[in-house]
Amino acid sequence: MFYVSDRTAITAETIGHSLLAQFEGITDYKEVTIPYVDTPTKAEKVVLQINAAAARDSDQPLVFSTLAEPATRATITNCQGLVLDLFEVFIKPLQEEFQAVPVVRRTRSHRLGNRSAYELRIGAIDYSLQHDDGARVKGYDKADLIMIGVSRTGKTPTCLYLAMQFGIRAANYPITEEDLGSSASLPGPVAPFKDRLHGLTIEPKRLASIREERRPGSRYASIEQCRAEVRRVESMFKQHGIPFINSTNTSVEEISTRVVQKRGLERHTSL
Amino acid sequence: MFYVSDRTAITAETIGHSLLAQFEGITDYKEVTIPYVDTPTKAEKVVLQINAAAARDSDQPLVFSTLAEPATRATITNCQGLVLDLFEVFIKPLQEEFQAVPVVRRTRSHRLGNRSAYELRIGAIDYSLQHDDGARVKGYDKADLIMIGVSRTGKTPTCLYLAMQFGIRAANYPITEEDLGSSASLPGPVAPFKDRLHGLTIEPKRLASIREERRPGSRYASIEQCRAEVRRVESMFKQHGIPFINSTNTSVEEISTRVVQKRGLERHTSL
Repeated sequence: MFYVSDRTAITAETIGHSLLAQFEGITDYKEVTIPYVDTPTKAEKVVLQINAAAARDSDQPLVFSTLAEPATRATITNCQGLVLDLFEVFIKPLQEEFQAVPVVRRTRSHRLGNRSAYELRIGAIDYSLQHDDGARVKGYDKADLIMIGVSRTGKTPTCLYLAMQFGIRAANYPITEEDLGSSASLPGPVAPFKDRLHGLTIEPKRLASIREERRPGSRYASIEQCRAEVRRVESMFKQHGIPFINSTNTSVEEISTRVVQKRGLERHTSL
Repeated sequence: MFYVSDRTAITAETIGHSLLAQFEGITDYKEVTIPYVDTPTKAEKVVLQINAAAARDSDQPLVFSTLAEPATRATITNCQGLVLDLFEVFIKPLQEEFQAVPVVRRTRSHRLGNRSAYELRIGAIDYSLQHDDGARVKGYDKADLIMIGVSRTGKTPTCLYLAMQFGIRAANYPITEEDLGSSASLPGPVAPFKDRLHGLTIEPKRLASIREERRPGSRYASIEQCRAEVRRVESMFKQHGIPFINSTNTSVEEISTRVVQKRGLERHTSL
């Protein structure tokens, strides 16, 4: 599998992975990503590389590409692989729709696309880092969202992903054993922001295995402790009507998307 | 612009943004993202929403979609928008290539795709956070990469992106004024890992404006100070043969891709 692009190749990889996931059993392949193929000369070198793979293997190489510049794209299309190019198939209908010709950008810098969405994302990363794991609880009035859950349920990567991908200011606050005591009230720092809270939970077995890696043999990592914490935190979520999601078999992308959808938050994807 | 998907719609957004960026002047549009459209019934509701937009506006709605299930896709295709669906155009050639029929996955969980690449990414986020901004300099032997640069050049978001998107264990170490003193040697903690270092620099004006937001009116944010630090850090990079990149007009995606390419690091995109 080749991912070829005149920019970062992140779109080409995303497309390729989305499509390959549709076919069961297609798992045994080598992946080569080649970004910044932005001239026909560079494209010719890539063609040699693809053709060498075609000569070596019995299977035809697959090439997922996002090449905006027509001459570069034409060069790649002539290789001995099966080329699936995003621009090849979609630019024409868009051109007709917009009654406009695409601009080929050759400059390497100034490629921030939507600058305001980009700056929102960078600002959100900064915010989420500063408000990670219960730090700086005073800034919660500026949060778009506060993720809560017991230790090691995936709050931090989820918040960072929400910030990075969607420009959402996501704080997170760990629910400790103390918080899960008899009172069943929400922890003081997050209680005033009930409408911004979202819970994360996890299967106790999985939690125990994650915690075991961090503190082997500890009470903290024991299955009894994990079971008790999960049971009590889920009951806290339910009692206060806080929506929650189980992270056991769900990726941060998926958790983030569901939380954003549930909350009606705006996505500021700027790529 | 509608982004419609039976999963997170991140691919659909990425595709849409890539394509729209090719047309200058197409900037004034409203974006609606609808994830988890995974049944024809849900698709019918989306069609109503698209048709309402079509009736309201003079321009035809554009629909970027990634819909794997044929009946759901067929439902959306019948809307009054211009539908550009990734699966519609690419599944057929892949099916012929693989001599296999795509599997439609209806289960909502277990959608981690390549689990080992995913866990690598989560582990890398953890590593990068723990080794952010000069913290825990003792773990550098486990770094894939150590980003260095003066304060506020974008080291942290770059490292987090490298970890999140590509599964790369990226530490970062801030170069202080003290490090830029007369000696011109590399700071002690990073000196033993010269081959893993990558520099970040920035235009002094931009740096001053970023620092001004953090500490208004400070010496730290003054243009003289920023000019001196940038000049000296670039000279340190050059003297020690450390490759560096200027972040002024370059997004974290672009910086990350270039660093990975330059270093020959492996990308572990798992989406």
